[in-house]
Amino acid sequence: MARWEGNARGRLERAALDLFTEQGYDRTTIAQIAQRANLTERSFYRWFADKREVLFGGSEELEQRLVSAIDAVPAHAGALATLLTAFATAPEVFRPREFLRERSAVIAANPPLQERELIKLASLADALTAALLHRGCDRQTARLATEVGMAVLRLTTERWMADEQADFAGLLSTSAADLLAVAADGVPARQEPRPKG
Amino acid sequence: MARWEGNARGRLERAALDLFTEQGYDRTTIAQIAQRANLTERSFYRWFADKREVLFGGSEELEQRLVSAIDAVPAHAGALATLLTAFATAPEVFRPREFLRERSAVIAANPPLQERELIKLASLADALTAALLHRGCDRQTARLATEVGMAVLRLTTERWMADEQADFAGLLSTSAADLLAVAADGVPARQEPRPKG
Repeated sequence: MARWEGNARGRLERAALDLFTEQGYDRTTIAQIAQRANLTERSFYRWFADKREVLFGGSEELEQRLVSAIDAVPAHAGALATLLTAFATAPEVFRPREFLRERSAVIAANPPLQERELIKLASLADALTAALLHRGCDRQTARLATEVGMAVLRLTTERWMADEQADFAGLLSTSAADLLAVAADGVPARQEPRPKG
Repeated sequence: MARWEGNARGRLERAALDLFTEQGYDRTTIAQIAQRANLTERSFYRWFADKREVLFGGSEELEQRLVSAIDAVPAHAGALATLLTAFATAPEVFRPREFLRERSAVIAANPPLQERELIKLASLADALTAALLHRGCDRQTARLATEVGMAVLRLTTERWMADEQADFAGLLSTSAADLLAVAADGVPARQEPRPKG
């Protein structure tokens, strides 16, 4: 991707987010976004299929990056450890905290955008599960590790957005420890059935 | 709800699922579903807003049942233990295994139905998180416990559908133990930073 193209995409994302925040998602048109970014509507459609997709432009990039990172983890690592190692590379493709905060607020205010986010996250989860299967993980473990890994990633990202000083990898470890505490609290203390009589 | 009404709803669900399985979801009309159930189209619309909703008819019932079950768990129970205790009551509102298997197959074959399922599951997750908050659980733990609890519920349901002899509560314990194993495998063995120099 040539640098100027990356700039055009980034300018469109920034302009769209500013307009969504200022005047609401529904009231913002693609013509307004292009104008704010000093680009044409035709340029907008070179990058995004529709207004909604401008909020989800980085998802394929993130997916490819994480799948590559999973493939690079040493073979002996467990399923969740593999995912968390890959997630630690994620901030490189994340946008700045401020951008992510505004994006989250726009999505939270619009149920159709929330639905789109769910679908994008499900697609990411499918790709991560497939990458774990490719490493020889069994299907049930791959799916379970992906689901809990996504929960850890969501919690980590929330904490990362809220704290300017926080280190993403450090928060990942904290959230993984929180997961372990929650999981340990869910197994019944006494698993043996009581003897009869 | 009068008994005959429950029968009408169940007959429509059964007829719809049979037709979706036989001839595909897209090729089935509401008129065909009503005819197969020996009811009128008008009866169909008394129960379901559209063709898609006939596959998701029990979701409000399940949500209400689980929220009531969470409220009834003793106060000292942990967040995930509370959810798993509530989930153990779920089979009472589930349909028969065979019905759920056919329903899963229809949904798996149709991306728009998969999206609908994601949205319904997100709505259920929101209700479970709210019920945990109501018990005094902190927000981050409530959300994390809900997400991993839903992963355990999904795995348990998959196992329950696959095994005619299996007991739902027993499978819940097995899946919760699998969760703990996955979570324990995700925390780095050495959490202390290395001393400098």
